[in-house]
Amino acid sequence: MIGPVTLPPVDAEAMARTRHRLNQLTKPRDSLGELERLAVRLAGMTGQEAPAFARKAVIVMAADHGVSARGVSAYPPEVTAQMVANFLAGGAAVNALARQAHADVIVVDVGCFRRCTAGHGPAPGGPAGGPQAGSAANAFAASWEPGPSPRVRFSERRVRAGTEDMTQGPAMTREQAEQAWRAGAETVDELAREGVQLIALGDMGISNTTAASAVTAALTGLPPVDVTGRGTGLDPAGLARKIRTVEQALQVNDPDPQDALDVLGKVGGLELAALAGAAVAAAARRIPVVLDGFTVGAAALAATRVAPDLPHYLIAGHQSAEPGHGPVLRALGLRPLLHLDMRLGEASGAVLAFHLIDAATRVLTEMATFESAGVAQSAKG
Amino acid sequence: MIGPVTLPPVDAEAMARTRHRLNQLTKPRDSLGELERLAVRLAGMTGQEAPAFARKAVIVMAADHGVSARGVSAYPPEVTAQMVANFLAGGAAVNALARQAHADVIVVDVGCFRRCTAGHGPAPGGPAGGPQAGSAANAFAASWEPGPSPRVRFSERRVRAGTEDMTQGPAMTREQAEQAWRAGAETVDELAREGVQLIALGDMGISNTTAASAVTAALTGLPPVDVTGRGTGLDPAGLARKIRTVEQALQVNDPDPQDALDVLGKVGGLELAALAGAAVAAAARRIPVVLDGFTVGAAALAATRVAPDLPHYLIAGHQSAEPGHGPVLRALGLRPLLHLDMRLGEASGAVLAFHLIDAATRVLTEMATFESAGVAQSAKG
Repeated sequence: MIGPVTLPPVDAEAMARTRHRLNQLTKPRDSLGELERLAVRLAGMTGQEAPAFARKAVIVMAADHGVSARGVSAYPPEVTAQMVANFLAGGAAVNALARQAHADVIVVDVGCFRRCTAGHGPAPGGPAGGPQAGSAANAFAASWEPGPSPRVRFSERRVRAGTEDMTQGPAMTREQAEQAWRAGAETVDELAREGVQLIALGDMGISNTTAASAVTAALTGLPPVDVTGRGTGLDPAGLARKIRTVEQALQVNDPDPQDALDVLGKVGGLELAALAGAAVAAAARRIPVVLDGFTVGAAALAATRVAPDLPHYLIAGHQSAEPGHGPVLRALGLRPLLHLDMRLGEASGAVLAFHLIDAATRVLTEMATFESAGVAQSAKG
Repeated sequence: MIGPVTLPPVDAEAMARTRHRLNQLTKPRDSLGELERLAVRLAGMTGQEAPAFARKAVIVMAADHGVSARGVSAYPPEVTAQMVANFLAGGAAVNALARQAHADVIVVDVGCFRRCTAGHGPAPGGPAGGPQAGSAANAFAASWEPGPSPRVRFSERRVRAGTEDMTQGPAMTREQAEQAWRAGAETVDELAREGVQLIALGDMGISNTTAASAVTAALTGLPPVDVTGRGTGLDPAGLARKIRTVEQALQVNDPDPQDALDVLGKVGGLELAALAGAAVAAAARRIPVVLDGFTVGAAALAATRVAPDLPHYLIAGHQSAEPGHGPVLRALGLRPLLHLDMRLGEASGAVLAFHLIDAATRVLTEMATFESAGVAQSAKG
């Protein structure tokens, strides 16, 4: 059973040392704004005055949703497995962005409808006309940076073949939600053993913003109409259908807003439960977690019901275009680093934020101090 | 004389090809938000369907301001030259961020009070207790990336030893403003000949946000109180003094808001005029220009009086904390890429935006298409 988790407290002394260090550097006090606040937060998470994150990883949790039968996405559910194949071939947005950020990509099948394979081709018995290695992607695979990073890796941790339609009953059992949670935690534990120091969380699952809206409405008490959006590109009729679907799922299942596993099991999804487990496991090891958009945020908000101090270890990579994301970030008490109107998922916004995290840590270690550079301080300095 | 400049039109055909290409990639249409709009704009600027910017440079224009005698900055004017020495030693924020972005840094003395040198030490005859090579910075100089980039280079293009106090008369003559403008243009021309494809513009000059506020108020007609801020960290009394100083400078000089050189010469600064000239020169060569904060933005806004189509070639790197920056960006019609509450100058915010520009170009060249990856398109796709 997933019980309450007490996370290590953030290191207030390291934060004070980092703040002091920032104030010695050759710049007006606080003039790097969010980068300075980020540096101080990272010190609190890691316990290091000048943290560095040479080993970064991106986890993309993939799963399917029975509720996709309700027509709540602009894409057919086969696309989940097709995109997993695309991730493994290196041709998706997250691959391009992870290469730029020198981050490894770990794709986890927590429960797609059809079993994916670690190879570049379609799964045996996969859909006809299904995933093929993208030629463009393959061309680039050869040009990856040398050395151990970035790599792409597949991890099979299937709990079940997609969820049930949550408008007809629970998406899955509580036990299955716990199993998915543990799959997420184990993924993080494995990466931590390999020396990964910074983790971005992303999602892939056709129809999963419907689940994220239901989870957000359940946790915050906000009406579904306020936290349900166009996802990958629904038209107005599709959005109206999606809102009704969320309302129906909540009515049928009546999840307990204080019980993360109840919410995630009844109206969530396998990848959401895995993301929640991954976030808590990373925080328990003092590994900073960069959240992507709405789906990941909703999972993290659910996780706070198990580990209330989780937000101390979370960084909101960006503010997405989904209307439910703002309420989720406010509930988590997080300010997003980027505002680029993105709504792709896959951890794309989280990986972009890696550059800002690197910038914050470089400032701490590479800048001269007023004293070392012989620069006069402010009259008030 | 600096006359009206007709810039090359943006390449609408390249923009259409880039938009089409983006719509083939394995992601929901428009789901990368600002990154996609950025990719399309870059195509229009460069005329290339998939532009790439292997050679990037950061120009920091440095100069001093006679108005600093009015007590409008939290720092003494000697800091301009001290920070130039810090840039050349590699210890400033822009150095750390430029190393991260693999960009060269070119520091131009357009008119500091005291002549700077290209070496790491204080200028001969420089102030006692003046610039020293930062030991922290030197330690890092040894660990720079191999290859030709990033480097730091000094360029002496002094027009005069700082400006006059603009509350007593014009900061400089029109001829001097034109000379500074040309110094900026020549800096860009030199970099373009070396193959630089993307330029960030930044500033260093104690008291130059006072000049930027005066320029912004002159150009937009907004009252000084709306476009004058705390700069590097003024207290409320200092801010009130700064606002009165801007009001007085405008009253004494009465610059013509349609005449860039009149505004820049009377109430601007040598580095502002150089930044304006640099921006127009880059645009004339179809080199995208990434603007840093308020001072650079005010200079670019002045430059639009000479080259009205300049904003097509400008990218707003970030929205700074200075209250005048928003009005400047609105007048330029630009949406900033980053909102990090920064107010450092030195091109620090512009250089951070290089990562987003690289992300946009990587997406264009590295992602698989729906067809190549065998991913089903949206029902509406």
